[in-house]
Amino acid sequence: MEGIHKATRNGGFFLCAKERAACRQNRPMHTRLTRQFQLHHPLVLAPMALASGGALAAACARAGALGLVGGGYADLTWTQREYQEALRLCAGDAPTLARLGVGFITWKLDENASALDWVLDLSPAERPRAVMLSFGDARTYAPRIARSGAQLICQIQRLDQLAQAIEAGAQVIVAQGGEAGGHGMNALNGRATLTLVPEVADWLAQHAPQVLLLAAGGIADGRGLAAALALGADGALVGTRLWATQESLAPMGARQQSLRTNGDDTARTEVFDILRRKNWPAPYDFRAIRNDLHRAWEDRLDALRSNPDAARADYDAGVKAGDFTRAHATVGEAVGLLHDLPGAAEVIERMTREASAVIQQLNRVA
Amino acid sequence: MEGIHKATRNGGFFLCAKERAACRQNRPMHTRLTRQFQLHHPLVLAPMALASGGALAAACARAGALGLVGGGYADLTWTQREYQEALRLCAGDAPTLARLGVGFITWKLDENASALDWVLDLSPAERPRAVMLSFGDARTYAPRIARSGAQLICQIQRLDQLAQAIEAGAQVIVAQGGEAGGHGMNALNGRATLTLVPEVADWLAQHAPQVLLLAAGGIADGRGLAAALALGADGALVGTRLWATQESLAPMGARQQSLRTNGDDTARTEVFDILRRKNWPAPYDFRAIRNDLHRAWEDRLDALRSNPDAARADYDAGVKAGDFTRAHATVGEAVGLLHDLPGAAEVIERMTREASAVIQQLNRVA
Repeated sequence: MEGIHKATRNGGFFLCAKERAACRQNRPMHTRLTRQFQLHHPLVLAPMALASGGALAAACARAGALGLVGGGYADLTWTQREYQEALRLCAGDAPTLARLGVGFITWKLDENASALDWVLDLSPAERPRAVMLSFGDARTYAPRIARSGAQLICQIQRLDQLAQAIEAGAQVIVAQGGEAGGHGMNALNGRATLTLVPEVADWLAQHAPQVLLLAAGGIADGRGLAAALALGADGALVGTRLWATQESLAPMGARQQSLRTNGDDTARTEVFDILRRKNWPAPYDFRAIRNDLHRAWEDRLDALRSNPDAARADYDAGVKAGDFTRAHATVGEAVGLLHDLPGAAEVIERMTREASAVIQQLNRVA
Repeated sequence: MEGIHKATRNGGFFLCAKERAACRQNRPMHTRLTRQFQLHHPLVLAPMALASGGALAAACARAGALGLVGGGYADLTWTQREYQEALRLCAGDAPTLARLGVGFITWKLDENASALDWVLDLSPAERPRAVMLSFGDARTYAPRIARSGAQLICQIQRLDQLAQAIEAGAQVIVAQGGEAGGHGMNALNGRATLTLVPEVADWLAQHAPQVLLLAAGGIADGRGLAAALALGADGALVGTRLWATQESLAPMGARQQSLRTNGDDTARTEVFDILRRKNWPAPYDFRAIRNDLHRAWEDRLDALRSNPDAARADYDAGVKAGDFTRAHATVGEAVGLLHDLPGAAEVIERMTREASAVIQQLNRVA
């Protein structure tokens, strides 16, 4: 309970004995999301490329959240290995298996959709409960996802992407603010979670009230989850906080660096995409810890683009050496709210417990 | 009540009859902020330069919020006229007078502090209850503000500015995210409200628990206010929503344009500072509606800086003609949540009423 007392400050109110007891009971939170997916918590693991592997997705599913394997760049071998690992860890438990899914970068599927085809061709019991598509036109893949029985989750970064996602048949919309770690829309064109979520909620209430809404970007504790629900979301998609867990596949050096970083020390630019030779289309860029190599180039993007070789060699050497002053650590602004590397189940239970406590505190204000 | 039903969507829950009754009663919300300033609502008018004049500040104070006149660039004549107008409109009502204050851009005070001196030399009954300083080192002015009896409010955009504000003796910290309209920290260095507020709250809980915290940037309705309280704030500083009111001094054409704009259509850049010949120091820039003239230059800032004359002439002609495809309209990302131009008192009552309803809905989830 010390964590909650220390971490939450709501209008000067602290928890009374009754609220403490409620926290200890760890009551589940129920929203439309938990009912639609038979979850115990209104939380979804972000399908983070190369971090959300089978162990992390399975841990989330077993804890009662929706666990999305990070299919990411749609590499068939990686997707097969990690999705099968998730199935293995959930084997024999039908409700837990039904909380597994997968996410892909849509424009990478446009190059090669074999990983999506593979996962949709699994046996009915093994197929993903949900497929999340981000960064591209989901309409191309929506019919075969629907035929498989999986629910379609579409992530957007601007209101003007919403109508197309609904046209694709999305059952869940993820409204991702620029606070998020990893890829998102660049600062000029992007939105913040705090304004995007209620604006999307208003549009959905008018045009597609049956479609669920998740908030993504900047949500790493119970305060953020409570705020997301207040803004009109049915739950939250969690990246950074679940990236910094025991089950994450992110390099341990990067995870440890994240605990020494505060939210001032991340930045959203194209630096690491150029260094990693990723051909991301505009207007997307990438948020990570603003390390020494990032700072050296963040004001000289044109120079980096036109002559990247020396900087790439520096980056590659950093990756090889596990030196995160040069290699990237993919976290969002919420990194300043992390102080430990617990198991994913503890993260999920803690977030819901804290959110319940926050809501009970708020109820004394209103 | 239709507004609340349409506008708020919380996990699929809508208001029950009892909650509707509570909304109609318009119960006050009490936090540490309302107690410290004897307010009826945990809301503060942002001291928006050239928009937060005497009429708007007085309307907020009379409605039970803290009304900060937008001293802005510290022009003595403007500050005298508008602050005296606020005093006139609140005359004879001591509790309302005690809810008036003023805000200044700190680096403009460094050039000429006569407007601050004038307001602090008023009679004890007329002096501001609070002085808010933003964008610079408040320590220079803190002693004379303290001697006047006014409370010091310091606005910050990054965690690393917090210690200096506390050293200055700030009794209230405003944590401003990049969603905000007008000036703020640029995208590379700035933060979003959703992550900055809880991180500042944690720091204050540890180092200065008596200091209050306001969330600013992106808060324009009861959902945003409830989210701000959930994140650990004692209240919210409101700009855009109060800019778009009857009492605002913003040009009517700009206010009307804001109602046709959604949150996708603002941007934070240096374009309008260059066009307006404002010598703002790095790393601050300016969010406004991304109109035709902004779009023409937003990708060519270096060219605009080195040869601004033609663009400035275009901008000046737009201002003269009231043509907001060229002149600027200073709003934040929350502009997409505005659908009318009510009086300020109605905005304030509506935000608190909606926030109470949202919190009651959340209580059914947790």
